[in-house]
Amino acid sequence: MQKLTAADVRVPMDVPADSRETYVSNYLKATRETGRLMLFACDQKVEHMNKDFYGEGIDIADCEPEHLFEIGKNGVIGVLAGQRGLVAQYAADYPELNYLVKMNSKTNLVKTSQEDPYSPQLTDLEAVLQLRENGVNVVGLGYTIYLGSEYEATMMAEAGQLIAQAHECGLLVVLWIYPRGKAVTAEKEPDLIAGAAGVALCLGADFVKVNPPKPEDGSAPAEALAIAAKAAGRTGLVCAGGGTVDAKTFLTQLHDQIHIGGACGNATGRNIHQRSLDEAVRLTKAISAITLADQSVEEALAVFNGEKDFSYSDI
Amino acid sequence: MQKLTAADVRVPMDVPADSRETYVSNYLKATRETGRLMLFACDQKVEHMNKDFYGEGIDIADCEPEHLFEIGKNGVIGVLAGQRGLVAQYAADYPELNYLVKMNSKTNLVKTSQEDPYSPQLTDLEAVLQLRENGVNVVGLGYTIYLGSEYEATMMAEAGQLIAQAHECGLLVVLWIYPRGKAVTAEKEPDLIAGAAGVALCLGADFVKVNPPKPEDGSAPAEALAIAAKAAGRTGLVCAGGGTVDAKTFLTQLHDQIHIGGACGNATGRNIHQRSLDEAVRLTKAISAITLADQSVEEALAVFNGEKDFSYSDI
Amino acid sequence: MQKLTAADVRVPMDVPADSRETYVSNYLKATRETGRLMLFACDQKVEHMNKDFYGEGIDIADCEPEHLFEIGKNGVIGVLAGQRGLVAQYAADYPELNYLVKMNSKTNLVKTSQEDPYSPQLTDLEAVLQLRENGVNVVGLGYTIYLGSEYEATMMAEAGQLIAQAHECGLLVVLWIYPRGKAVTAEKEPDLIAGAAGVALCLGADFVKVNPPKPEDGSAPAEALAIAAKAAGRTGLVCAGGGTVDAKTFLTQLHDQIHIGGACGNATGRNIHQRSLDEAVRLTKAISAITLADQSVEEALAVFNGEKDFSYSDI
Amino acid sequence: MQKLTAADVRVPMDVPADSRETYVSNYLKATRETGRLMLFACDQKVEHMNKDFYGEGIDIADCEPEHLFEIGKNGVIGVLAGQRGLVAQYAADYPELNYLVKMNSKTNLVKTSQEDPYSPQLTDLEAVLQLRENGVNVVGLGYTIYLGSEYEATMMAEAGQLIAQAHECGLLVVLWIYPRGKAVTAEKEPDLIAGAAGVALCLGADFVKVNPPKPEDGSAPAEALAIAAKAAGRTGLVCAGGGTVDAKTFLTQLHDQIHIGGACGNATGRNIHQRSLDEAVRLTKAISAITLADQSVEEALAVFNGEKDFSYSDI
Amino acid sequence: MQKLTAADVRVPMDVPADSRETYVSNYLKATRETGRLMLFACDQKVEHMNKDFYGEGIDIADCEPEHLFEIGKNGVIGVLAGQRGLVAQYAADYPELNYLVKMNSKTNLVKTSQEDPYSPQLTDLEAVLQLRENGVNVVGLGYTIYLGSEYEATMMAEAGQLIAQAHECGLLVVLWIYPRGKAVTAEKEPDLIAGAAGVALCLGADFVKVNPPKPEDGSAPAEALAIAAKAAGRTGLVCAGGGTVDAKTFLTQLHDQIHIGGACGNATGRNIHQRSLDEAVRLTKAISAITLADQSVEEALAVFNGEKDFSYSDI
Repeated sequence: MQKLTAADVRVPMDVPADSRETYVSNYLKATRETGRLMLFACDQKVEHMNKDFYGEGIDIADCEPEHLFEIGKNGVIGVLAGQRGLVAQYAADYPELNYLVKMNSKTNLVKTSQEDPYSPQLTDLEAVLQLRENGVNVVGLGYTIYLGSEYEATMMAEAGQLIAQAHECGLLVVLWIYPRGKAVTAEKEPDLIAGAAGVALCLGADFVKVNPPKPEDGSAPAEALAIAAKAAGRTGLVCAGGGTVDAKTFLTQLHDQIHIGGACGNATGRNIHQRSLDEAVRLTKAISAITLADQSVEEALAVFNGEKDFSYSDI
Repeated sequence: MQKLTAADVRVPMDVPADSRETYVSNYLKATRETGRLMLFACDQKVEHMNKDFYGEGIDIADCEPEHLFEIGKNGVIGVLAGQRGLVAQYAADYPELNYLVKMNSKTNLVKTSQEDPYSPQLTDLEAVLQLRENGVNVVGLGYTIYLGSEYEATMMAEAGQLIAQAHECGLLVVLWIYPRGKAVTAEKEPDLIAGAAGVALCLGADFVKVNPPKPEDGSAPAEALAIAAKAAGRTGLVCAGGGTVDAKTFLTQLHDQIHIGGACGNATGRNIHQRSLDEAVRLTKAISAITLADQSVEEALAVFNGEKDFSYSDI
Repeated sequence: MQKLTAADVRVPMDVPADSRETYVSNYLKATRETGRLMLFACDQKVEHMNKDFYGEGIDIADCEPEHLFEIGKNGVIGVLAGQRGLVAQYAADYPELNYLVKMNSKTNLVKTSQEDPYSPQLTDLEAVLQLRENGVNVVGLGYTIYLGSEYEATMMAEAGQLIAQAHECGLLVVLWIYPRGKAVTAEKEPDLIAGAAGVALCLGADFVKVNPPKPEDGSAPAEALAIAAKAAGRTGLVCAGGGTVDAKTFLTQLHDQIHIGGACGNATGRNIHQRSLDEAVRLTKAISAITLADQSVEEALAVFNGEKDFSYSDI
Repeated sequence: MQKLTAADVRVPMDVPADSRETYVSNYLKATRETGRLMLFACDQKVEHMNKDFYGEGIDIADCEPEHLFEIGKNGVIGVLAGQRGLVAQYAADYPELNYLVKMNSKTNLVKTSQEDPYSPQLTDLEAVLQLRENGVNVVGLGYTIYLGSEYEATMMAEAGQLIAQAHECGLLVVLWIYPRGKAVTAEKEPDLIAGAAGVALCLGADFVKVNPPKPEDGSAPAEALAIAAKAAGRTGLVCAGGGTVDAKTFLTQLHDQIHIGGACGNATGRNIHQRSLDEAVRLTKAISAITLADQSVEEALAVFNGEKDFSYSDI
Repeated sequence: MQKLTAADVRVPMDVPADSRETYVSNYLKATRETGRLMLFACDQKVEHMNKDFYGEGIDIADCEPEHLFEIGKNGVIGVLAGQRGLVAQYAADYPELNYLVKMNSKTNLVKTSQEDPYSPQLTDLEAVLQLRENGVNVVGLGYTIYLGSEYEATMMAEAGQLIAQAHECGLLVVLWIYPRGKAVTAEKEPDLIAGAAGVALCLGADFVKVNPPKPEDGSAPAEALAIAAKAAGRTGLVCAGGGTVDAKTFLTQLHDQIHIGGACGNATGRNIHQRSLDEAVRLTKAISAITLADQSVEEALAVFNGEKDFSYSDI
C-alpha cells in the first residue's frame, strides 16, 4: 500500500489550527500511515470480566493482564485500546505502543432483560490529557454507545462532547456502536448497522467499530457491510472481531470486510489474546498483513502459521 | 422581493451590542436577505437512521452522506442543518454553505410506547463556537423539543439556555417543536401547533419549525397555520417538509403555507435528498423560487422541470 | 396612598451593600412607590399554550403576542411578567415597561394524573443579567413552585438558589406557589395556602403569588387569606387572578383581598389580555386604581367603564 | 458551669489555620461558652407548614413569623435555626442573635407511603457566606438527613460536602438525622438512633440532633440515649424537642437527657413558639437554665413560672 | 522481608512528575516499606451502623469511636481507613497514623431486595487535600463499588475519576469491590471475584479489597484467590476480614491468602475493633507479623497470645 503523508490526512474542521499537526501525527501513527486501523481491543476485563481471560479454551497466559501488553509489544498492531487505568499501570514499560483510551465501560452482570445498557464514562478528558502530558503515547479515545437503549441519550451526549473536546486537542476518536436494549430485536440487522455507522459520522468520529451485519435473507454480510461503510461517509468503519474462531475463517472474513465491505480496518480482542503469546503475536501480524499491507488471505495465513514473518517494515 | 438591509433586521434584546453586527450578518446570510428561511434539513441520519437514505424509492446517491453537501453546493438553499460532527467532517470542502448546527438528536429505535421522547444535546455551545473560530461558516443553531413528553422539562431547559447563549454570540436559533409523547393524542391538532409556536417565542427563538396543522374539521391547513404563525409573534414560523411527495403537491403546499398560512419559509429534508443529485438540486431551486423570490407555483414547477433556472442572483 | 421613599424600603440582608441601591430602585419601580404589586401575568403562552389566547370568548386581538405589550404600554401596571425570550423579542419596542422575567415554565400537556408537575428553569441568572446589561428594564424574577409535587425538591432548590443570586444582584423575586400533585387533594385549602405563603418567606421571596384560599366551611375567602398573609410575614402576598370573570366581581374580590385579606397587590393575566386592547387597558387601570391608589370598587368600576381615567399620576 | 475559653475548644482538622479563630469564636458563641447547645428550631414553616403555627392549642401570636425572632431576642438561646431566606428577611432587625442557617427543607405534603423523603439543599454555601459578609451573625449550618430513605445517598453526599466546606470557612455544622423511609419500621429504635449518631460523627458534624430513642423493652430512654451519645464520639448529641407537652415533663426529660443520657444540649421548636411571647420567653430561659447553667428541674420550673429570672449573665 | 526503597516502587503513569515523590512516599508509608498493605478498616459506623460496635459479643470499649484510634496508635497497622469526618475529628490527637480517607459510604438500612446498592461519594477530592494541607497524614483514598448493582455505572464513574485525580496528587487508591445487587446470585463466586479484581486494575487502583472467593466445588479458596490475584495484575489484592472469628482461624486464612492466594495484604475491621483494646492491639500485631514480616501462623499466634511482641521495628 502506498503510505500516506501528512498532506493526505483529511483533518476535520473541529480540530483547531494549533492541534492540526498533532491530529495528523496521531492519525498517521494509529493507521501506520495507511489510513487503515488495526485496533487491538483490550477493554474486555471490564466488559466481559474474567471469563474472557481464564477458562476452557483460553491459554493460561491470558490470565495475567501483562499478556495484552506483551502481545502489543511483540506483534504488529495499530493501537492498543484499554481503559485509562490499565494503560496507566503498564505504559511505563511499554512506551512504544500507540494507546487508545477507552473512556467508558460496563460489566455484563446486569442483563438487558433487567435494565437497558449504559456504559459510564470513567473519567473526563483532562485525565487522558494528563496521561499524555506524563509521556504516555495516547493517540486517541474510544467510547461505546448502545443505540436503542433507554440510556442512548446519555451516551450520545457524552460521546458528542468527548469527540468535540478530543479533536480540539488533536486526539482521534473511535466509537464502538452496538444497537442493544429492549427496543432492539435484531442487533445485527443490516439497516441498523448502517444506521449506526451514520450516527458515528454525525457525531464526528474518525472511526466506528460495529458488529458485522447479518442479513436475514442469506445475502453476503460483506455486501451489507458495504452499505454501512457508505453510510459512515468520512468516518472509517471497522468490524468487531467477535468470539474466537479458527484463524482461516477469521482472516477470510476480514479480507472480505475490507475488500468487499469497504471496511478500513479491524478491531479484534478475544481472537488474539485468548491464544498463547507466540500464537497471538503471529495472529496480530497476519491481521496486519491484510489490514495494513493489503496481503491476501493465503499470505496472511502463512504469517499466522509462522511460514513467513510480517513486521512494521512490511507495511 | 425587496432585499433586506442590516437596518431592517430586528435584533432581539438578548444580543449584546458587540454581537449585533454578527447577528445581523447571520440573519441576512441565513435568509438570503429576504427574512425568509429555506432550511435544508440534513439531520435525519440520526433521527431516521439509514432508512431515509437507502431503500426502495430512494435514489442510490443518497446512500453516501456527501450527497447532502453536493446538493447544498449546487442548489439554492438558505442554510444546511446538520449535527456538529457531520458539519465538521465535510465543511472544509464546502466552505461557502451557511451551516446551522443541530444541537440535539435521537434515533427512532425506542418508540414512544416504550418511553417518551427525549433528544439529548450532543455538545455544548463551546464546541460550536470552536467550529466557527476554525473557519466554518456557522450562522446558527437548531434544537428539537418534544412538547408533551415526560422529558419536556429537560428539553425546554436546554433550549432556553442555548438560545440565550447563542444570541449572546450573535448566532440565530431555530427550534424544531413537535408535540409527542403518551400525553399527546393528536400531534398535528391546530391548537397544539399554535401553542408550540407560542412556546418558541417565549423561549426567544428566531424561527420555529413545526408540522403543518391537520384540522379534523376538514378546514384548510393553511388557514389553521395562519393562527399558529400569529401565535409565534416575532418568531418566524416554517413548516417541516415531511415524507417525499410529488413536486407539484409539495410546491403548492409550500406556496399556501407562505401566502395563506403566514409561514416565513420552509424546512425540507427527505423530499430533497432522496432524489438524484440533479433532481434534488432542481427541487431546492424550485423551493427557493417560492420561498426566497415569491415566484408562483407554476414558475417553481418550471424550475423543477428544468425549463428555467433559478440561482442566487434571482432572489 | 402615601408614596414610599427609598428610606422606607426594607432591604433583605442577602442584598449586599453595593446592590442595595439597585434593589431599592427596583422595589420602588415595581410597586410604583406604593409597596403594592400590580403584576400583569404574561407567561401563559407556555403554561396554557394557545387556548388562553384564541377561541370562543377571547378577543381576536389576543391572538398576537404583541397585544400583551400594547396593553402594558397603554395601561397602568407595575410589572409585566413573561419568559426571558418573550421579553427579549419585544422589549426594544417597549422600553418603558418594568419587566419581571419568569424563570420557569411548563406546558399543560402532561397531566398530574400521568406525572406530578415540574416546571423547569429555562435559563440561569446570567442570561437575565445579560438582558439587563443590554438595556432591558428588568426589575426582578419569577419562579413557580408546585408544593406537594414529587418534584417539589427540585423546584425548592432552584428557587432557593435563584432568590439568593437575584438579591445579590439587586433584583426582586416573586414566587408563584401552587400546591399540586397526587398528594394534594384540595389545592385551595386555607391551611395549605397559608403554608405556601410561609414557604415563600423561608425561601426569602419578596412577593408570593398564591391562589385565593377556598374555605370548605363556607367562611369568607378574604378572611382565610388574612391568615395566609400573616404567615407570609415580610413576604408580600398577592393573589392569582384566575379565569376571566365579569369586571365587577373581579374588582370586588380584589378589593376584599387587599382590605380584608391583607394582600399587597394582585397578579392578573387572562382577565386582562383576553379582552380587546381598549377594554384590557381600562381593566389594568381599574385594577391599579384599587391596588396602587386605594380607590373603592365603585371608583375602579367607573375607570373600567371609561367614565373616568386613571393614570400613573393618580397613584 | 465553668466557662470555656478559646483554648478549650477542640477544632476539627478540616478547619484550616486561617479559619480556626472564626471556628472557635462561632463555637463559643453558639454554646454561650459552655460547650452545650441550646438550639431554637425555627425551620418548621417549611417542614410542618402552617399547622404548627396556627390552630387549636397554638397561641395566636405564633401566626406571624416575627414571633420567632421576638422570642429569640427576649429569651435566652444559643442559636436560632432557620432557612436562609427567613433569616435574610428579619436579621437586620435582630442583629444580636446567633443564626444557624438550615440548608435543606421539605414540606410534609408527600407522605413516605408515596415516596421516601428527600429534603433538598436550598442554596449553596456561597449564599450563606454572602449573608455573613453582609453582616448577619451566622455561626453555622444545619442539614437534615433521612437515613434509610431511598434518597439517603443524596443527602449523605450533600451533607458530607457541606460539612467540609463549612469547616473550611470556620462555620459549625449541626446535622438533623432521622431514620425514615419504607425500609424503617421503628424510627426511634435505640440501635438505630445510636447508629445515626455515629453517622454524624463520620460525616464530621459538630452536633447531631436526633429523636430521643424509645426502647421497646421498657428500659429508660435516657439510658438508651447514653449509648447513642457515646456512639457520636466527638460530635455533640442533642435531642429534638418534639410536640408540645407541659413544661414540667419537658424540663424533666431534658434534664435526664443531659445528665443520664450524655446529651450536650437540646433542639426545641414547637414547645417554645406555640406559646405566647411571654410564656415562650420564659420557657427558653428555663431550658437554658438546665442546658447552659446545669440548674435543676425545680430551679428551671421556677424560671418558667416566673418566680425567678434567668439571663445570659446567669450562665 | 527485604524493605523496599523508593527506587523499587512502580509509579503509575497517571502520577505526574511533580507528584511522584509524594506517591512513592505514600506507598512506602502505607505498606511500611514492604509492598504489602495492612489496612485497618474503620468505616463501618456508617456501613453497619452501631450493631458492629455495641451488643452481645462485642467488647464495651468498642462503643466509643476513640477505641479505633487507640488501637491504631498502640497496635501495628499500615493505614487506618475511615470517612473524612471521622478522621477530621480525631487526627489532631493521633497525628502519627497513616490515614486512608474512605470517600463513599452507605448504611445498611435499605436492603438490596428494595433497591440495588449505591454508596455515595461524601465529598470531593478537594476536601481531602484540604485535610492534607492542614497537616493530617493522608496517604490515600478508598472507594467502594458494588459491581452488578443497577448503580454500578455511577460508582464506576466516581471511582474512575477519583483515581485519576488522586494519582495526580500523589495519593494511593484502594478500591473495595463487592458484586452485589439483584443481578448477583453468588457474591463470592471465584470467577466474579477475579473479574472484580480485573475491574480494579482497569480503573487504575493501587490496591483492591475483595471478599475471599468461595468455590462451590469445594476447592480451596486460596487457590481460587490466586486466579483473582493474577487478574488484578499490577493492582495489589487484599481480602476483607469479614465477621469476627477466632484468632487462629483468622490468621491461618490470612497466611494462606498471602502465600497461596497471592494476596498482598489484608483489610480487617470487626475482627480487630470488637475486642478489648489490649486484645485488639495484639491482633493487629499478629496480623502485621504475617502481612508485613512474613512470619508463620504459629509466630503470629504467639504474638496474639502475648507470648512475644511485634512492633514496627520487626518489619
